[in-house]
Amino acid sequence: MDIQYNSWLEKFKQPFGAVEMNSTVNFNIKVDSEEYIKSVALIVKKQGEKVEIEECSMKPYETNKYKYHYQVSKGSGLYLYCFKITAINHEGQEFCLYYGKSKDSGEGYQYVNEASIRWYQLTCYEENDQAPDWYQQGIFYQIFPDRFFNGNENKTINSPKPNTFIYGTENDLPMYIKDESGDIKRWDFYGGNLKGIKNKIPYFNQLGVTGLYLNPIFEANSNHRYDTNDYFNIDPVLGTNEEFKELVDALHENGIRIILDGVFSHVGRNSQYFNYSGLFGDHEGAYRNPHSKYRDWFTFLHYPDEYESWWGIADLPEINKHNKSYQDFIYGKSGSVLSFWQRYNIDGWRLDVADELPNFFLEGIRKNINQTDGKVLIGEVWEDASNKVAYGESKEYASHPVLHGVMNYPLREQILDLVNERKTIQHVAREMLEMKENYPDYFYYNLFNNIGTHDTKRILSECDGSFQKVALAFALLFMTPGVPCIYYGDEVGLYGEKDPDNRRFYPWETPNKELMKVCQNWATIRRSHDSLLTGECHFLYHTKDNLFAIYRFTQGEESICFFNFSNFEKDLSIDNWLCDELDPVVVTEIIKRFDVPRLTISKRHHLFLVKQLLK
Amino acid sequence: MDIQYNSWLEKFKQPFGAVEMNSTVNFNIKVDSEEYIKSVALIVKKQGEKVEIEECSMKPYETNKYKYHYQVSKGSGLYLYCFKITAINHEGQEFCLYYGKSKDSGEGYQYVNEASIRWYQLTCYEENDQAPDWYQQGIFYQIFPDRFFNGNENKTINSPKPNTFIYGTENDLPMYIKDESGDIKRWDFYGGNLKGIKNKIPYFNQLGVTGLYLNPIFEANSNHRYDTNDYFNIDPVLGTNEEFKELVDALHENGIRIILDGVFSHVGRNSQYFNYSGLFGDHEGAYRNPHSKYRDWFTFLHYPDEYESWWGIADLPEINKHNKSYQDFIYGKSGSVLSFWQRYNIDGWRLDVADELPNFFLEGIRKNINQTDGKVLIGEVWEDASNKVAYGESKEYASHPVLHGVMNYPLREQILDLVNERKTIQHVAREMLEMKENYPDYFYYNLFNNIGTHDTKRILSECDGSFQKVALAFALLFMTPGVPCIYYGDEVGLYGEKDPDNRRFYPWETPNKELMKVCQNWATIRRSHDSLLTGECHFLYHTKDNLFAIYRFTQGEESICFFNFSNFEKDLSIDNWLCDELDPVVVTEIIKRFDVPRLTISKRHHLFLVKQLLK
Repeated sequence: MDIQYNSWLEKFKQPFGAVEMNSTVNFNIKVDSEEYIKSVALIVKKQGEKVEIEECSMKPYETNKYKYHYQVSKGSGLYLYCFKITAINHEGQEFCLYYGKSKDSGEGYQYVNEASIRWYQLTCYEENDQAPDWYQQGIFYQIFPDRFFNGNENKTINSPKPNTFIYGTENDLPMYIKDESGDIKRWDFYGGNLKGIKNKIPYFNQLGVTGLYLNPIFEANSNHRYDTNDYFNIDPVLGTNEEFKELVDALHENGIRIILDGVFSHVGRNSQYFNYSGLFGDHEGAYRNPHSKYRDWFTFLHYPDEYESWWGIADLPEINKHNKSYQDFIYGKSGSVLSFWQRYNIDGWRLDVADELPNFFLEGIRKNINQTDGKVLIGEVWEDASNKVAYGESKEYASHPVLHGVMNYPLREQILDLVNERKTIQHVAREMLEMKENYPDYFYYNLFNNIGTHDTKRILSECDGSFQKVALAFALLFMTPGVPCIYYGDEVGLYGEKDPDNRRFYPWETPNKELMKVCQNWATIRRSHDSLLTGECHFLYHTKDNLFAIYRFTQGEESICFFNFSNFEKDLSIDNWLCDELDPVVVTEIIKRFDVPRLTISKRHHLFLVKQLLK
Repeated sequence: MDIQYNSWLEKFKQPFGAVEMNSTVNFNIKVDSEEYIKSVALIVKKQGEKVEIEECSMKPYETNKYKYHYQVSKGSGLYLYCFKITAINHEGQEFCLYYGKSKDSGEGYQYVNEASIRWYQLTCYEENDQAPDWYQQGIFYQIFPDRFFNGNENKTINSPKPNTFIYGTENDLPMYIKDESGDIKRWDFYGGNLKGIKNKIPYFNQLGVTGLYLNPIFEANSNHRYDTNDYFNIDPVLGTNEEFKELVDALHENGIRIILDGVFSHVGRNSQYFNYSGLFGDHEGAYRNPHSKYRDWFTFLHYPDEYESWWGIADLPEINKHNKSYQDFIYGKSGSVLSFWQRYNIDGWRLDVADELPNFFLEGIRKNINQTDGKVLIGEVWEDASNKVAYGESKEYASHPVLHGVMNYPLREQILDLVNERKTIQHVAREMLEMKENYPDYFYYNLFNNIGTHDTKRILSECDGSFQKVALAFALLFMTPGVPCIYYGDEVGLYGEKDPDNRRFYPWETPNKELMKVCQNWATIRRSHDSLLTGECHFLYHTKDNLFAIYRFTQGEESICFFNFSNFEKDLSIDNWLCDELDPVVVTEIIKRFDVPRLTISKRHHLFLVKQLLK
C-alpha cells in the first residue's frame, strides 16, 4: 500500500501548523493500494484530563484521494491525529493499517499496531496572544547582575554579605567554594551592581539592544539569587530599591526595556518566610514558628526539619502553590510582589522554572500582568513548550494565553548542530520546521531565543573557541523568528564552560571588538528590516552543496541569509534548493530572485541579501 | 648508698645555671654509704663534632663530702656532667655507680648502667650577649598584617591579587579554600594593611606596648607571606615601600619599635627567583632557565620538576644556604636584603624557622645586624633552645652570640598547664626553673615570651572561653623574665582554634574592654617596676594550699604575684612555701616581708604586691 500525506505541505493539510479554536482544518490523503480500501478515517484525540477520541470517516474524491474538513471544536489544547485505513485483502480478510508521523518529517509511516503510532500534533490555541511590539521586535541582552559591571568608584562593593567571598579581581575565574559533601560553603561575588548596569546604558545603545533581561535581583544569599530571601527588596549587594527605580527610568529614557526574573516556585531557606538560620529572629518564619503565617506556604513532612524542597535542595524550600495566601502574596491585586514591582514600571517578567508552576498559578500571574498594558510574560521551559507534560499536568503554554512565550533552548541546540556540523542540515531544517508547525504563529514570534544563558556553556566554548562559528551562530539567532537575546559577554568573545565558568565577569579590558561588530551589525540589520522583525520564515537547504538558508519576507521586503558551515568555499547555484513546506518550483523562484549565480560563500561564512519589493 | 646532689642548690653547685667561658664551677656532692667509697669523680662531656669526655677526681672534704672546682675550658657550648662513684662492696668487689639527673628536679638518680644516664646540663656561653634595653624592657605586640586593620577609606583593598578571595566582612571566620587533594586553591584576604597599622598607633600607646612584631610583609602569594616572592618589595596588598617607611617613622616618633619576620629558609614557588608559573617571563628564574643566576640557590633532584622544598611543600622551594650568592643576597654588606631594610630603620628581625638555618648562616645574619647599633635578632625555636639539635647540627643559640633570644613556646605550655591545672604547680615550677638553669642569664631575659601566636590556638580558646583564666595567663606572661609579646586580639578576647581560626580579623566593633584593661594594667605595672623589667626571679609554690607565686627583685624593689588557679578562695599563709633553688627559711622570709596573713585570693585570681626597699 502506498499512502501519501505530509502535514507540512498545503496539498495535504490546510492551514499549515497550529490553528485557532473552532477553525476548520482540511486534511487530504492519497492511498494507492492493490487491495480493496473499505474506508479511510481521520482519528483525532484531544489531550486533557479525559482523552476523547473521534473517528472521522474521510470522503473519497478523485482517484484514491480522501478528504475531511475537521472542525476543531473541543476547545484549545493539544489535538493528536493519525489516519486509519480499513482494507480487505485478497483472501477477503478485513485488516486495519494506520498512518502516523515519522520522527523528523512531515511525512509519515504506516503502523500496524495502534499502540505504537507516533501521532501528528495539531496545536489549537485559544486566541492570538501576541506580545507587545516592543518585545516582539526587540533585541534583548541578558545580564547576570553580579558579573557585569561595578558602577562604584574604586570598585567598592555595596554591602558585602557576611560569610561570603569577593573575587580578588574581575579577571578571576569563577569557582564554587564547597565543603566535603559538595554543599556550597560560602558564596562568591564579584560585586557587579545596578549602578554598573545604569552606567553602561551607552553600551547597550551602541550594541543595539532594546531590552534587558536581568537574572534575579531580589535579596538572597547566593550570587545567582534564585534563593529569594525578600521579594520586596533589591539585594543590597546590587543596590537599593531607589537605585533600581533610577535604573528603570534611565533605561526607559534611552529606549531600553527591562524584564525581571520571577522566582516563585521556591524561596531561600534563610528568607524571612522560612527563617532556617534564625536571621529574622528566634520565633519568626515557618521553620521556627509553627504558628507563623508562612507555615502553610510550605509542605512539612515532619516539622520542622523535613520539608519539600526544590529538586531536593534543602536550601530551597518549595512553596505549595495551592496556598491562597501565597497566591495573594505573589499576584494579588494590591500589595503583591507583582504589583509592587509594577510600580517601578518594569516591562515584564521571565518566570523561573515555569513548568513547575501549576497552570492556575500562571493564570493568576498573567491576570495581574494584564492589569497594565504592554507588559510581557515569558517562561523558562527547556523543551518544545507546545506539548510539554510536567508533574502529570499537560502544559498549555502554546494554546492558552498565559505565557507570551518561552525561552527557546531547542533553537540553541539546532544552531549548535548546524555550526558544529553535528547533524545534517536537512535534519536540523526539519526540526526547525516542526517547531514552527507546533507553535501558534504568535507564540513562535514571541519565543525568547538564545544561543547561551547562565545555565548553559557559552557559545564560544560550544564552538571550541572558533569566532567564525560564533559569528555564524549569531547570524542564525538574528535570522530566526522570535526575539534574540544575547547573554552578556557572548558578544565580545567571553569563554565559558558549564556553570560556574559561564558566569565570568564581563571582560571590559579585553573585549573581542570584531565579534562585537558582528553583533552590532546584526542588531542594526534586524531593527531596520521588517522582514526580520515580522516577516514569515522558510528554512531552505541544499543537500548537494550542503548549504542552509533562512528566508524571511513581508509584503514589501524579502531577505535571505545563506550559510556555509563547512570548511570549504562554495559557489551558490539556483537549482536543487529544498524547503519541506514548499514546492521545489517555488523554492527555485525564491532563490532566483536573489541573483545568486554570481555569488560565492567563503568557508564558515554567511551571506545576507535583501530585496525591497515594489508593491 | 645515699647520694646528695642538687644542681639547683648553692650548697651543691656554684654558680647557679649557665656560666661564661673559662669560669670555674664548684661542685659538691655527699655520698653516704655502708660500702667503701674508693673514689668519686665528676664526668664531663662537651657536646660537639667530637665528643670529649673528662673524668675529674673529686676531692674529699668533711664527712662523706667531695668537691671539685671545674674549669670550663673547652670553649662555649653544651657541657653535660654526671658523677661516678667507685666503691667496693662487702665481698670486696669493686663496682661503679653513676649519679645523673632526674626528670624534673635538680636532684638526681643513681644509675647503674652508664648508657642510660640522664646527664646534667651545664650551658657555657661565649659572652654576655645582652639585647638592647629597649628590647629587654619592652612589651611587644604581634600583628598578622592581613588581619589587623584596613586603613583605607571605605575599606577598599590595596591591589587585590589575581585569583584570590576577599572576605565579605571582617567578621567572617577565616577558612582555607582547598581543592580535592587538600592544596590551597585560592588564598583568602581580609585586606588589613600598613596604613591600618599606622592609624592604630594611638591604640598601641593606649595599650602600653612598646614594640611591634609583624608577620611577613614582603610580596608573596599567600596571606601569611611565608612564601616570599620579592624580598625588596612590601606586598602591594599591604601597601608600598614608601608607606612602610612612613609607618616605621611614625612608630618611632611614638616610641614604638618594630621588628620584621625574616623568612630566609625558602622562597615562594612563584618568586622571581624560582618563577614556577612564569609570572616573571618565560626564561626567568631557576625553574625556567637552567642558566638562571638563581639556579644554584636551589637543589634540583631532577631539573626542573623535582626540587627540595620546605617540609616537602612544593610551593616553598628550599634554599641551599651554602650558596655564596644567596648568602650575599641575604646578608652581604651592601645591597643585601638585610641592608636594604636597615635603611628603613627597622629595629630587628625575628627569623622564621631559625633552626633550619645553619649556624654559619645565622652568624652571617648577625654580623650584618651588628653593623648598626641597638638592633635585635630573635629566632623561631619551639623547644628549649639551649640544647636543641636540628638536622644533625647542635644549635648554639644559647652559648654563641648569634640570636639574642628565641620565641619562648615552652613558657606558653607551662602557663597553660598552670591556668588549666593540667599539671601540679610543683611540676611546672620545676620546669620553669630548669629553663632558667639551662639558659644563660642574658638569654633568659632576652626570651620572646608569648601565650599564643599565629601558629597556636589562641589563649581564650586554650582557656575554653574563660576570661578569668586568660587574665591569669596574662599575669604569668608579664611576671616572667623575658619580653612579653601579645598576639593581636588576645587582649580583647578574640577566640581562635587552630590555624586558620587563630587568624581572625581584630574585633574592632566588639572588643572585650575588661580584658583589655587587664592587659593595659599589666603593661603599666611592668613598665613602672624595675623588679619586673630587670629583676631576678624565683618561682615559689605552696603544695598544701596549691598556690603559685613569682617573686621578682632588684636591689631597690621586690614584687610578688600570688596565683590561685583553683576554683576556691584561699587565704595566704606564711609557712610551707617552697622554692627549688632556695632554702625554705629564705623563702619564708620573703613571704613574710609581704604581710600576707591578712590576705585572701579569690578563686582563679592573682594578687600582685610590691615593696620598695630602702637602700
